[in-house]
Amino acid sequence: MKIIMAIIKIDKMNETKRALTEAGITSMTATGKVFGRGKGLWDAKVMEGAKMDMPEALTHLGKEPRLRPQRVLNIAVSDHNVQLTIDTIIEVNQTPAPGDGKIFVLPLDDAFQVRTGDAGTTIL
Amino acid sequence: MKIIMAIIKIDKMNETKRALTEAGITSMTATGKVFGRGKGLWDAKVMEGAKMDMPEALTHLGKEPRLRPQRVLNIAVSDHNVQLTIDTIIEVNQTPAPGDGKIFVLPLDDAFQVRTGDAGTTIL
Amino acid sequence: MKIIMAIIKIDKMNETKRALTEAGITSMTATGKVFGRGKGLWDAKVMEGAKMDMPEALTHLGKEPRLRPQRVLNIAVSDHNVQLTIDTIIEVNQTPAPGDGKIFVLPLDDAFQVRTGDAGTTIL
Repeated sequence: MKIIMAIIKIDKMNETKRALTEAGITSMTATGKVFGRGKGLWDAKVMEGAKMDMPEALTHLGKEPRLRPQRVLNIAVSDHNVQLTIDTIIEVNQTPAPGDGKIFVLPLDDAFQVRTGDAGTTIL
Repeated sequence: MKIIMAIIKIDKMNETKRALTEAGITSMTATGKVFGRGKGLWDAKVMEGAKMDMPEALTHLGKEPRLRPQRVLNIAVSDHNVQLTIDTIIEVNQTPAPGDGKIFVLPLDDAFQVRTGDAGTTIL
Repeated sequence: MKIIMAIIKIDKMNETKRALTEAGITSMTATGKVFGRGKGLWDAKVMEGAKMDMPEALTHLGKEPRLRPQRVLNIAVSDHNVQLTIDTIIEVNQTPAPGDGKIFVLPLDDAFQVRTGDAGTTIL
């Protein structure tokens, strides 16, 4: 079992979840907004200002802000669904421009369904 | 060492933390709201509308919304506390109805306390 | 490859990201606020009240609230950058007082860049 941690654009989240669901991948958790792949510094107030088109904030961030609000989708999958999950996420999120996101694959030792107490890949 | 990632109902969070603390499990981090186990699509605005009982949103979600706001509790534990942690979470959160949540067990290579620089299970 | 999960003080986030960037560590994602290392109970409304210096909330939390709003920084690194990353985080965040945070090191099986489909340490 693996946890696939996908850090993707906010506006691709619904389409990504739909594509995964259609591919049979359903055990997922979406976080609130995160700030990803910051190659420079980030500051919540500057980001807020930039969203409201405040000139000081935009100047601070420059023409190509390196700090992107993104969303994290954590997906628990059986080993045999890892490649399908990665391919599906890439297909939906890939564009020619930087900033499409990253996918991380973490080992997962075990998984439990709270209601039944069942464990293992059957609950995914 | 393991990271236990529990995705549980928001209104069970306090009781879960209390039960874990009483069981001697104290190294935990609670996230903000997440949207878990979405078997369908989700949309933040629709969720907001549903919370305010807006009829359009409720229609959109249907009678049994498949998208549940939940909370993630990450707990770092020694290997010998894994079962106790899982049992405690299940005991507090188990109901006969679906939606009680999931528990994931991830391997943890190392842990450090920032203030002391101490590492390993002693800091958990 | 590893995921370094650092749970640190909110007001240390910018300095931490700057120090990591200067050390050549750039693949990171910052979450919103979390509530960490709760040795007791926590309650969002009480925390809100405490932030606004409401006397009832402060009484409830006591003189040394054990519940600290923090932030999580997830950093994906090659094995040879693990120690540098940990050292950098500790250097920036270490004070003599409790509450400086924790660092967790999780194994990472693989990493993909969505835009290119490239995998492995080269994308970090």
